[in-house]
Amino acid sequence: MDDDTMRRGRPTLHVVAGEGMAILAGDGLLTEAFHLLAREPVSGDSLVASRKLRVIETVARAAGVVGMVGGQAIDLASVTPDPKGQLHPVVDASSLRAMHARKTGALIRAAAVSGALMGGGSDQQIAGIDAAASEFGLAFQIVDDILDVEGVAATLGKTTGKDAAAGKPTYPALYGMETSRRMAAECLERADASLRSAAVDDERLIAIGKWIVNRSN
Amino acid sequence: MDDDTMRRGRPTLHVVAGEGMAILAGDGLLTEAFHLLAREPVSGDSLVASRKLRVIETVARAAGVVGMVGGQAIDLASVTPDPKGQLHPVVDASSLRAMHARKTGALIRAAAVSGALMGGGSDQQIAGIDAAASEFGLAFQIVDDILDVEGVAATLGKTTGKDAAAGKPTYPALYGMETSRRMAAECLERADASLRSAAVDDERLIAIGKWIVNRSN
Repeated sequence: MDDDTMRRGRPTLHVVAGEGMAILAGDGLLTEAFHLLAREPVSGDSLVASRKLRVIETVARAAGVVGMVGGQAIDLASVTPDPKGQLHPVVDASSLRAMHARKTGALIRAAAVSGALMGGGSDQQIAGIDAAASEFGLAFQIVDDILDVEGVAATLGKTTGKDAAAGKPTYPALYGMETSRRMAAECLERADASLRSAAVDDERLIAIGKWIVNRSN
Repeated sequence: MDDDTMRRGRPTLHVVAGEGMAILAGDGLLTEAFHLLAREPVSGDSLVASRKLRVIETVARAAGVVGMVGGQAIDLASVTPDPKGQLHPVVDASSLRAMHARKTGALIRAAAVSGALMGGGSDQQIAGIDAAASEFGLAFQIVDDILDVEGVAATLGKTTGKDAAAGKPTYPALYGMETSRRMAAECLERADASLRSAAVDDERLIAIGKWIVNRSN
């Protein structure tokens, strides 16, 4: 389902072990995630049990058809003809954003919200962290597209320029490099504002956001 | 990863929608299962929350690398050369049984145990139901192999004789038809004994076992 044969400088699993085994590895890892979420932390505390259930529901929703899997399906339909030979391309900024919100944004949000849930955050804090993580997810994708154009093949360890070459829309292609960089910086500003208004006083979350925008690989 | 193009008289999903979409459908359904398990039944009862977590842990373990996914990997390795061109065939009765215990048996057990967990069964009752379900799983596989040999293509809706043709070991191939039928019947007897000794007084479980052994499709 993907032509990539290299990731981070190493051959991808379907090259090494065959496509069937690679699919099973994905199924196994996906399932193991829920196994661990249900088990850890080992606790007989009913409050912890209720929080863990909310985390499992949050992560499953973000990984599934309304999240990562759904986003991947939109992405696949945009570059692969359906059985009738029709393409379903992602052509404009709003559909590009909707695709990435599912494909990567949903799991980034779930990761942040899960921490807030387990830590006993208030509804207001959880909403603020969710909003900030949503901005982080968008910034991550914009920066990913920028790095792809800049062609930092050595550090990313994958073929660069491939998204543009595959005809996939990217932020630099839609908005240009300068505007794309400004958009990523604005995501960080909105994230900071969300956290402050929710009274989440944690510099580490914003530090992660800064890393996402300033990363070079 | 599978040459089958028909199941129950209809074309399989990878034929209809392409392999990439079929893989995503599997990932989406697998994830949705955990989403539903975490959410349903909607209840603020902490006892229910603790039981639901045990069910999620049970189902995830049964579906994952020590269960269904692991069994499927053993099955795949038995018919597909690895990257070095080596086959890892399942050659004898004990390895065949170990493969099926993972591939289908683990999820059948998890389904039965989950009911017992949510119903508040005692440890003894849960162990008895688990043992009986393990026998049901073995019986199911033996009967599946028998039906494959008998070639009930019309009712199974898939190509029959394909396991034997693919060089996969089957119970009839290892033991003959008559002994295979007796083995399935013995599974049912052991399941009945397990339920009785655990004081599980429910005729419906044994009725399911009888259906498994006597089914013709």
